[in-house]
Amino acid sequence: MIANSSPDVIVIGGGIIGSSIAVRLAQAGARVSIFDRGEPGREASSAAAGMIAPQAEGPKPEAFAELCGASYSLYPEFVAEMEDLSGIAAGYHRAGSLLLALDDAQAQELDETEAETRRRGLAVERLDADAVRRCVPGLGEGIRRGLLLPGDHWVDNERLTEGVLEAARRLGVTIHANATVCSLSARNHRIESIKTDTAAFRAAEFVLAAGCWSGVVAASAGLEVPTVPCRGQMLEFEAPSQLSMVVRAGDHYLVPRAGGRILVGTTADYVGFEKAVTAEGLASILSGALRLAPFLGKLRFRRAWAGLRPDTADHLPILGRARLENVTLATGHFRNGILLAPFTARLMADLVAGGTIPPELEAFRPERFALGAKAGGT
Amino acid sequence: MIANSSPDVIVIGGGIIGSSIAVRLAQAGARVSIFDRGEPGREASSAAAGMIAPQAEGPKPEAFAELCGASYSLYPEFVAEMEDLSGIAAGYHRAGSLLLALDDAQAQELDETEAETRRRGLAVERLDADAVRRCVPGLGEGIRRGLLLPGDHWVDNERLTEGVLEAARRLGVTIHANATVCSLSARNHRIESIKTDTAAFRAAEFVLAAGCWSGVVAASAGLEVPTVPCRGQMLEFEAPSQLSMVVRAGDHYLVPRAGGRILVGTTADYVGFEKAVTAEGLASILSGALRLAPFLGKLRFRRAWAGLRPDTADHLPILGRARLENVTLATGHFRNGILLAPFTARLMADLVAGGTIPPELEAFRPERFALGAKAGGT
Repeated sequence: MIANSSPDVIVIGGGIIGSSIAVRLAQAGARVSIFDRGEPGREASSAAAGMIAPQAEGPKPEAFAELCGASYSLYPEFVAEMEDLSGIAAGYHRAGSLLLALDDAQAQELDETEAETRRRGLAVERLDADAVRRCVPGLGEGIRRGLLLPGDHWVDNERLTEGVLEAARRLGVTIHANATVCSLSARNHRIESIKTDTAAFRAAEFVLAAGCWSGVVAASAGLEVPTVPCRGQMLEFEAPSQLSMVVRAGDHYLVPRAGGRILVGTTADYVGFEKAVTAEGLASILSGALRLAPFLGKLRFRRAWAGLRPDTADHLPILGRARLENVTLATGHFRNGILLAPFTARLMADLVAGGTIPPELEAFRPERFALGAKAGGT
Repeated sequence: MIANSSPDVIVIGGGIIGSSIAVRLAQAGARVSIFDRGEPGREASSAAAGMIAPQAEGPKPEAFAELCGASYSLYPEFVAEMEDLSGIAAGYHRAGSLLLALDDAQAQELDETEAETRRRGLAVERLDADAVRRCVPGLGEGIRRGLLLPGDHWVDNERLTEGVLEAARRLGVTIHANATVCSLSARNHRIESIKTDTAAFRAAEFVLAAGCWSGVVAASAGLEVPTVPCRGQMLEFEAPSQLSMVVRAGDHYLVPRAGGRILVGTTADYVGFEKAVTAEGLASILSGALRLAPFLGKLRFRRAWAGLRPDTADHLPILGRARLENVTLATGHFRNGILLAPFTARLMADLVAGGTIPPELEAFRPERFALGAKAGGT
């Protein structure tokens, strides 16, 4: 029995995934509460670079490409809706991205991305080294060639996440900040309540969207959700003139931000929940980025930070019903949480309301890990 | 005519040089005011690493070595006195420094430093690569050999500068913060007053100790004081275990700080008054420091900053009377402001009180630049 004051749905995790789901549930008439272990939205959702680039992650299973493509298609409308609901501008730009090859391996990746992008009927333009330099001045001498992806977008993920949270608030969602969920109490194959360090809260349905902390939260109810933190480090510089598009080569990228800023990333460190910016992280990002874009050299450093991406054993998200009846999992989005938020929110809200996952998205079912696969990085 | 409320001496510049001079003048009974363009002590004096290493700068004129040696000898007493006067602990440590050679050029520098140090009768110990690694664990594979200088010290220059300023305050010195001196009014070969953007202030004597801004201030009275800003960038990391001594190879060094911190420097950039931390500065410091001490790699980054050292055309300080009768210059200390503060303060206070510069320090007289030498870095 649920007390009158209890919400219909508790969403654990106030990042862009959890808060987007909360928005959709609230719009469908549910009373929703979000619980976040810290300041909602201040973990991976804020730490990311905000590239909306469905083809940028290299070859993946077809189902994942479809998931990315579906969420990408929803993006313009999703951003506009969240901006309308919240009044917070999300810094959404559709000026494309420039993928670069500085060595053989990157040249081959470029070919694969080009073929894949064409196969999907998306716009793509091959550029030689001179054309690359005309496209974005100040790039490095070592660039062999590039690929212009005019359909790629980027968004200020900090502002968008803020906007989604504000939209949730305005739709009546209750947000509990600094409320770490310490345990889930299960009975008769259902979660009855969650416990924070100060109180217990009941609900009819639970959504677990706690990023890399999902596994820890789920374990208290005997659920195995193999999320692994993958640290990414980032730097921000002041740029006197605006960078016109995203520039990327391998793990090294430059992303424009409003106010004459440029984000520069990143690393992929498997070091547990240690959210430190390190000397070797900074050194690796800087050496790669300076090779890619020597013009960065003179730019003023503003800040550095790190975030913990929620990775999984197969680097694919975990989307679907858990083995407990009233628990939905929406986690493990790894490098693609910002991109995947709109479609994840739609799918999960359907699920909570009694719908099913479309068969082509079976690849992301939580049960796939029950076969003995182990979570872990490379 | 000086109004009753006017100080006897106005010191322009509230860094460690200006405030140390103010302390000595106040102790001699003078009424002293300090004018600082910002928060006193927050420029080069705070940005430095605080190495008290009289032999570390390589071959220099004999007079400069004597100046450094004299100030070095005063250090323990100077720190103790400022700590007593201010109540602020300066983090003074006498555990020595370890100079390292990673290539031929550094090996030759090491030899020169060793010879010079022995010639001066100071303690020095030659270490092979194995002995270096026993001395400080976690250093790089590329280290050829080292030199242990047990007589080198280091001080937390931020705390010491704070302490000297607090000592000055307690001795009755008036400190004007955020009071940029816009011009000096000269008449009959004397400065009559200084003007800030809000008021004019008169005094009998003036001391110019404004670091790299000294030249700009002096120019308004027709004085040529060729100071040039030389930017140095620095990083700070958290270290779980304390670094036992200063470690240095060329421009790259690690300096221990209280609270499990390590400072890592530096650069020497001639880019005017632009006090930015830059991508190339960070990259250069990190790549050098990681080669020197790979253990830094995993350490947590805390902050980065830049300071503007006051360099001169011959990289030597400017100490003595200006061509105006009541103006004393104490600037251009370049990389050695922290080390040289105690002796500079003693010399300058003597000068202001009517004394003379000892003949062996004639090399630092301001007039040397009147011969047509041009200020500027390399």
